[in-house]
Amino acid sequence: MDKKLVSREEDYSKWYNELVVKAGLAENSAVRGCMIIKPYGYAIWEKMQSQLDKMFKETGHENAYFPLFVPKSLFEAEEKNAEGFAKECAIVTHYRLQNDPDNKGKLRVDPKAKLEEELIIRPTSEAIIWSTYKNWIQSYRDLPILINQWANVVRWEMRTRLFLRTAEFLWQEGHTAHETENQAIEETKMINNLYADFAENFMSMPVIKGVKSKNETFAGAEKTYCIEALMQDGKALQAGTSHFLGQNFAKAFDVKFADREGKLNYVWATSWGVSSRLMGALIMTHSDDRGLVLPPKLAPYQVVFVPIYKNDEQLDSISKLVKELRYRFSEKGITTKFDNRDTKRPGEKFAQHEIQGVPIRITIGPKDLEKKSLEIFRRDSLKKEFIEIDKSVDHVIHLLEQIQTNLYSRALNFRDENITEVDNFEDFKNVLESKGGFISAHWDGTDETENKIKELTKATIRCIPEQGEFSSGKCIFSGKPSAQKVLFAKAY
Amino acid sequence: MDKKLVSREEDYSKWYNELVVKAGLAENSAVRGCMIIKPYGYAIWEKMQSQLDKMFKETGHENAYFPLFVPKSLFEAEEKNAEGFAKECAIVTHYRLQNDPDNKGKLRVDPKAKLEEELIIRPTSEAIIWSTYKNWIQSYRDLPILINQWANVVRWEMRTRLFLRTAEFLWQEGHTAHETENQAIEETKMINNLYADFAENFMSMPVIKGVKSKNETFAGAEKTYCIEALMQDGKALQAGTSHFLGQNFAKAFDVKFADREGKLNYVWATSWGVSSRLMGALIMTHSDDRGLVLPPKLAPYQVVFVPIYKNDEQLDSISKLVKELRYRFSEKGITTKFDNRDTKRPGEKFAQHEIQGVPIRITIGPKDLEKKSLEIFRRDSLKKEFIEIDKSVDHVIHLLEQIQTNLYSRALNFRDENITEVDNFEDFKNVLESKGGFISAHWDGTDETENKIKELTKATIRCIPEQGEFSSGKCIFSGKPSAQKVLFAKAY
Repeated sequence: MDKKLVSREEDYSKWYNELVVKAGLAENSAVRGCMIIKPYGYAIWEKMQSQLDKMFKETGHENAYFPLFVPKSLFEAEEKNAEGFAKECAIVTHYRLQNDPDNKGKLRVDPKAKLEEELIIRPTSEAIIWSTYKNWIQSYRDLPILINQWANVVRWEMRTRLFLRTAEFLWQEGHTAHETENQAIEETKMINNLYADFAENFMSMPVIKGVKSKNETFAGAEKTYCIEALMQDGKALQAGTSHFLGQNFAKAFDVKFADREGKLNYVWATSWGVSSRLMGALIMTHSDDRGLVLPPKLAPYQVVFVPIYKNDEQLDSISKLVKELRYRFSEKGITTKFDNRDTKRPGEKFAQHEIQGVPIRITIGPKDLEKKSLEIFRRDSLKKEFIEIDKSVDHVIHLLEQIQTNLYSRALNFRDENITEVDNFEDFKNVLESKGGFISAHWDGTDETENKIKELTKATIRCIPEQGEFSSGKCIFSGKPSAQKVLFAKAY
Repeated sequence: MDKKLVSREEDYSKWYNELVVKAGLAENSAVRGCMIIKPYGYAIWEKMQSQLDKMFKETGHENAYFPLFVPKSLFEAEEKNAEGFAKECAIVTHYRLQNDPDNKGKLRVDPKAKLEEELIIRPTSEAIIWSTYKNWIQSYRDLPILINQWANVVRWEMRTRLFLRTAEFLWQEGHTAHETENQAIEETKMINNLYADFAENFMSMPVIKGVKSKNETFAGAEKTYCIEALMQDGKALQAGTSHFLGQNFAKAFDVKFADREGKLNYVWATSWGVSSRLMGALIMTHSDDRGLVLPPKLAPYQVVFVPIYKNDEQLDSISKLVKELRYRFSEKGITTKFDNRDTKRPGEKFAQHEIQGVPIRITIGPKDLEKKSLEIFRRDSLKKEFIEIDKSVDHVIHLLEQIQTNLYSRALNFRDENITEVDNFEDFKNVLESKGGFISAHWDGTDETENKIKELTKATIRCIPEQGEFSSGKCIFSGKPSAQKVLFAKAY
């Protein structure tokens, strides 16, 4: 916590890594590609979880828990899905260690304890869940099934980055089963809207809702809805996806139901998820060169009190006032912390609370007690002001709301300034290199064009926006006709 | 849900399995030894989690998240701990699948994707956590560290039973680091008391607090505190453990700190956990031949309303009343459900709510509307009564409290009736076979005696009670002197 961060301009990627570590959010572990989520980072994740969980329950979903392991034979049942994950999965082959006869005090895998069938650590749970739904569904009366799971999953990524891409990560995965195609599509869209609502109203992060191109569609899905956000460095980040799975998994696992006419039909499915990668999105949407900036709704504590004192008597008077204020704040639902550590000087405390993004800092010294006022510091604008103690509760409530909306509008302005319309491939390349951000351009709808653009520029189609420009035109690459502009960007 | 359970008397073990499945709590999965926790079961687990989490936070603990994988070299660092878990762990050896050239559409492990070092799926996280704490701790100012983690762990058990013993299970594990031996011991005891408080006041399950014998002490610990409960079939169940780890892990991972005199010392440690096995304990403490009986504090919903009607008009009137009552109940913090499914007859609904242990069922028919009264059914006593609608909110609040305490005192009576004092080994064997339960007896304190008794009777020392009979006597097996009676039992 001692040193300053490198500036964003100097090295955005280094700034990000330093911030994550120095703010006490996460760090790398002894296991390749796996992170440790530290208490302060985990507290933010818990806030996200609890809000999302509430929203899922309000829309009729229940939580359940399915196994970590997927037997290889189930894993491979839905071919496209299996193919999509086969190259990056952790595989359990043995179930026992034994003393290593060649190395005293060391252990080795017991060759006799080989599993008959290998177990894949779930990279996602469609396979294990649909092999279970088969037994739960006989008739339309058993539908819909609306289940969510909070779990850890593993994808053996080669290049990892804290929160953004790790071998193990935390997420929620919804898996629903429906009578009709329409109901499944409605569920898929409803969840994508729920994700957008969460991103915008809790993370203060504007997102664009849309559909993925075929190339970027989830392996095993018919259609992938998504929310896409723009980071400060001009790269896009996929913040959540909601998949319409059609009858693919029902067919792979033979899940049929007797419909209202008594006919046997395959069940319609969706799956959807957001992950601890949202932590990365949160950081790269709001933070500055001093560190993290948190929207009040997701801050582990919204207000921190720092006492300034020269002797115990002064500290006592300040502590008495803080105790009273904390009580009054908490009555109004504001979370607070009193940083009365005697092992740190005020300057060190300020630096820590700034790097950790505490929305409001209140400093109280002996002079403030005399004047019956407080010094209030806003993390988002870095502005200080003095407020009468008696007015402080109402003022802080107001400030917290203001910070929440200010962060959103700041991010929205930035995002909107960084959507550029282009009409030809030269401009496309220029904008991508000079400015970055989202590029809105006509595309002929083929995989081939998309792949070539990716190959030449590293930009991918982030989404076909829900509310796009529906005027027809010509593909910027192939010149072929196009019905709608889509959003390209380099992405995390 | 259609069929009745086998009775407890006929086959307790079968009754348990049937109950777990038919009440929709959990079921076996396609993966050997791994269970699926179904929505109703998971909702109970969530209630447990949220209460425990609150209690941990109130006592100064924070949550964090550490990796699922433990590299073999870290796993083996603390030798006793490694030895304790080596025989039952899942081992990841490869990180990629490939198409099987001999089997079209099938996958096989890619032999080229072998890990340099095997990864053990955590059976518990001391190793990965203490290898991390090493970097977090330099001075006494960094202590204490009070961290808890909610996670899944894997122990490759050969004989598994839903909730009680599964290869993968859910738990919380606390891992704390302290300056002094005393502070660590105080933490260990405080947590054991917290567990007892949770068991008794939320699960309505009486427990005996004590210390494990050396044989039963956690591998790598100096001392294991525990809470032990008694199940209806006379077998004991270890419901929670809190370990004083001494400096064992600090030494294995070389975790030293500069103390207040500037000297380098090894850090003192504790770890503690309860798991989804508590679900099994809950079931086997209160349930009856009709199914689950839930203490109101852990019930997913405390009151279920069932309408009795012959036409839509009647249903409308009942629904109107139920809507109003649900609102009034929820204002008082009572959770309710309106079971207005038109696909089930009232009798089927009653059976389902009984097997699922809903504490209170309220039935409303047209006659009740006329009389302005409700039929209230208590799951614990199976008693029905009629209550004026206007008095129902207060009455239900009162009933829920009564059910919570009634379940506790019923279980406490049963438990106390099933602690038998014996003075010789013949009586010991007779009581164990005829009556079961806890047997309080003198023991000479040696592993040898404990092992022989276990070999001959399958009974183990469940704990050396905190508040035991401290009169000295003679070991029932060896005749050697003994300072205190200990509790034996057959156990889950």
